[in-house]
Amino acid sequence: MALIVQKFGGTSVGDIDRIQHVSDIVANTRKQGHDVIVVVSAMQGETDRLINLANTVVASPNAREYDALIATGEQVSAALLSMSLISAQYPARSYTGFQAGIQTNDHHRKAEIMNIETEKLRVDIHEGRIPVIAGFQGINDHGHITTIGRGGSDVTAVALAAALNADECQVYTDVEGVFTSDPRIVKDARLLSQITFEEMFELAALGAKVLQRRAVEFAKKHQVPVRVLSTFQQGEGTLIAFAKEEQEHPQVSGIAFDRDQAKITVLGIPNDNVSVSKILTAMHAAQIDVDMIIQNVVSENDDVDFSFTVHMDDYYEALAITQKIALSLSAREVIADNKIAKLSIVGLGMKTHASVASKMLQALGEEGIHIHLITSSEVKISAVIDEKYLELGARTLHAAFNLEKTH
Amino acid sequence: MALIVQKFGGTSVGDIDRIQHVSDIVANTRKQGHDVIVVVSAMQGETDRLINLANTVVASPNAREYDALIATGEQVSAALLSMSLISAQYPARSYTGFQAGIQTNDHHRKAEIMNIETEKLRVDIHEGRIPVIAGFQGINDHGHITTIGRGGSDVTAVALAAALNADECQVYTDVEGVFTSDPRIVKDARLLSQITFEEMFELAALGAKVLQRRAVEFAKKHQVPVRVLSTFQQGEGTLIAFAKEEQEHPQVSGIAFDRDQAKITVLGIPNDNVSVSKILTAMHAAQIDVDMIIQNVVSENDDVDFSFTVHMDDYYEALAITQKIALSLSAREVIADNKIAKLSIVGLGMKTHASVASKMLQALGEEGIHIHLITSSEVKISAVIDEKYLELGARTLHAAFNLEKTH
Repeated sequence: MALIVQKFGGTSVGDIDRIQHVSDIVANTRKQGHDVIVVVSAMQGETDRLINLANTVVASPNAREYDALIATGEQVSAALLSMSLISAQYPARSYTGFQAGIQTNDHHRKAEIMNIETEKLRVDIHEGRIPVIAGFQGINDHGHITTIGRGGSDVTAVALAAALNADECQVYTDVEGVFTSDPRIVKDARLLSQITFEEMFELAALGAKVLQRRAVEFAKKHQVPVRVLSTFQQGEGTLIAFAKEEQEHPQVSGIAFDRDQAKITVLGIPNDNVSVSKILTAMHAAQIDVDMIIQNVVSENDDVDFSFTVHMDDYYEALAITQKIALSLSAREVIADNKIAKLSIVGLGMKTHASVASKMLQALGEEGIHIHLITSSEVKISAVIDEKYLELGARTLHAAFNLEKTH
Repeated sequence: MALIVQKFGGTSVGDIDRIQHVSDIVANTRKQGHDVIVVVSAMQGETDRLINLANTVVASPNAREYDALIATGEQVSAALLSMSLISAQYPARSYTGFQAGIQTNDHHRKAEIMNIETEKLRVDIHEGRIPVIAGFQGINDHGHITTIGRGGSDVTAVALAAALNADECQVYTDVEGVFTSDPRIVKDARLLSQITFEEMFELAALGAKVLQRRAVEFAKKHQVPVRVLSTFQQGEGTLIAFAKEEQEHPQVSGIAFDRDQAKITVLGIPNDNVSVSKILTAMHAAQIDVDMIIQNVVSENDDVDFSFTVHMDDYYEALAITQKIALSLSAREVIADNKIAKLSIVGLGMKTHASVASKMLQALGEEGIHIHLITSSEVKISAVIDEKYLELGARTLHAAFNLEKTH
C-alpha cells in the first residue's frame, strides 16, 4: 500500500484509445492496492491548436488571457480520463489547477507553484477516489489562472507528490526510461535502472528530454523519488533518487545533448562587471533562462567579450534585448548563432576523475569536431559545437566512455 | 452612461473573424460611454466536439466530468475575445464561471444560478475594464464545475444583469430580433420592436428559439429589460420589457412553433391520481421538463389515458422511464410519437378574446390539419399537430391573424 502520483504526458493521452489505455494503467495500480493521484497534460496537438487560435486573434496575446485559454487543454484530458475511470467502476474526480488547490505566483506563462492546499485531495484518497488533476496550471493570489511553463505537468506531479508525501512519482512518457544517451542517435544506448538526482538534473537540463529540469529540481529539493517509465511498453523504467553512500558509480553515466540552444556573443563591452550584469538582469526580467555564461578577459584594461546560451524559444527575444543593451554600452558587435548544439557528459563519479575532460576533448578532436565553448560542473562537462556534428559527437563520446549495451 | 450586459452566442463567436467583429461591437458600446459586461458562449461546433470526445470515451459520461469538460468551450471564447479587446486597447479580463462568482446548485448539466458574488466585476467596471464571462457555467458549494443547461449563456447574461442592476441585457444572435413568426417558414413575418415578458415567455418556450425560456423567466422575475438583436446586421432589435398600462395590444402578436417535441401517451392506467403523479415525479427526478399534460377521464371508475410532451433530447430517456412505470401500473399500452410538432398563437390581448381559439381551430381545419392535443393559457393557445403540417399551419395562422408585414 503506497501513495503513488502518476503523470501522463500529451502523447500518452493523445487520443481516446490512449486515454482508455492510461485508464487501464491507473486501474491496475489501484488493483495492486495502491492509492493513486493522476496528473495529465493536454492531448497531443491540443495546446498547439489553442496557441494557434490565440495567434490568429493577435500576434502577442495578453499573458493572462493566454493562460486562461491554454489551461483548458489539460482540463479536457483530465475530465475525459475521469470519465473513463468512472465507467470502469473506479471512482475518480477531475480537478483544474484551482480546484486542486495549486497556488502559484503571478508570473503568467511561467508561474511557479508556491503552495498546494491538499485537503480536498486527501479526502478523495481517504474515501477511495482517484483525483485526476489538470497539470501545468494553477491560480494566483488574485484568482487568475496561471500556467507553469515548459514541463509544467511534470512539475505539477512532483509538487503534488511532495505536498502529499507520496511514496513515488511516476512520470509516464513515450520512452522506456533514462538511457545513457538518446537511442535514436546512439544505437548502443543502454537503459539505466537507477540514477541520482544530480545526474538526472544534468541529463534533463542538457536535453535528454525525458523529464524537465524544473521537475527534477523540485523532486530533489523535496526528496521525492521519481520513476520515469513508458506508457506503451511494460518495464520498470528508471528510478531517480538519492545516491546511496555505498553505491559504486561509473565514471560517466550518460551522454546528453540539446539542439535547441542558441549562442549570443557581445564583443567589446567595458570590463566593469556592470555591463554584463545589465544584460543578465534584462534576461531575468524577461524571464529568459540563460544557460552557459562565458566571459573572456584578456587583460584588466581591455574590453571583454561575453557569450551566453539560451533556449531557441527565447532566441529572438534575447537577441533583441541584447542588441538594445549593446547599443547603450557602445559594444563593438553582437554575434548570434542558432546553428549550435550542446553536447555533455554526465556522471556522479566524474568529480574525482580529472582525466574525464581531457578524454572528452581528445575524442572529439580526433573526429575533427571544433569546440566553441566548454563549461564544467561537478557532475557534467558541456561543450558547444556546430549542430551538424551533434550525432557524430554523441556516438563518439558514448563509445569513448564505454557506455554501450554490452558494458 | 448605462451599464449594459452583452451576450454573444455560438454563431456570433463562431470563428476568429467573428470574434474580432464582436470585439468591435463591444468596443463601439464602450466608445458611446457605456460600461459593458460581456457573456459568451462556446465557439460554434466546439461544444459538439467536446460532447463527441466524451461519448467516444463512454456512452453515458459521468455528469460532474461532463460539466468539467464542456465548460472549457466558453472559457476558450472568453479568453480569445478578451485578447482581441486588449489588443484594441480596451482593457478586458476573461472569467470562468467560478472566477466570476457564479454560484449554482448541485444539478450537474442543468444547474441553476443561486447567487453571484459581483465584487470582482464591480471593481473591473469601476476601474474601466470589460469583464468577459464564460457563459453557461458556474461552481457549486463543493467547488465542482457545473453547467447551466440549455440556453445557459442567456441565463448567465440575464442573471448578471440582475445582480449588477444593469440598465439593459442585450442578447446578440443570428436573427434581427423577435418576429411575428419564423421568417424562414412564414415569408411575411414582421419584426416586433417591443414585446412583453409574458408574450416573449410563450414565444421562447414554444420554440421561437430567439431566447431561452429560462432566461426570459429570470428577466421577468428580476425586471431586467432584455434586447434581442443581430450580431451581423445593424438594427434596434426587439426590446422585451413589462407592458405599459396604456399600451394597446394586438390580439395576437406572433405564431410560434417547436419541432423538437415528442408525445408520450399511457393508455389504461388507474384513475387514482397517484399513477399519473408517479410518472411526473419520475420525470422531475430525471430532470426532464414536461411541457403539455393532458388527461382524459371518461367516467369516474374508468381507466384513464394520460399524455404529455417532452423535448426531443429527453424523448428516449422519458420513454424508458414511462415504460418501466407503466409496467408497474399494469397500464394497457404506451404509445410514443416523435413526428409531432407544436404550433401556438401568442398574444397578450388574447385573454379578453375568447374567439381566438375558435378562429385558430377553424383556420387549421380548413387546411385539413388534424389537431392531436390543444392547451391554452392567458397568452397562448398551443396545438400538437403532425410535424409534416407545421409550415402550412404556421403560414395559415399568420395570415388568419393578419400578422403580415403590411399590417
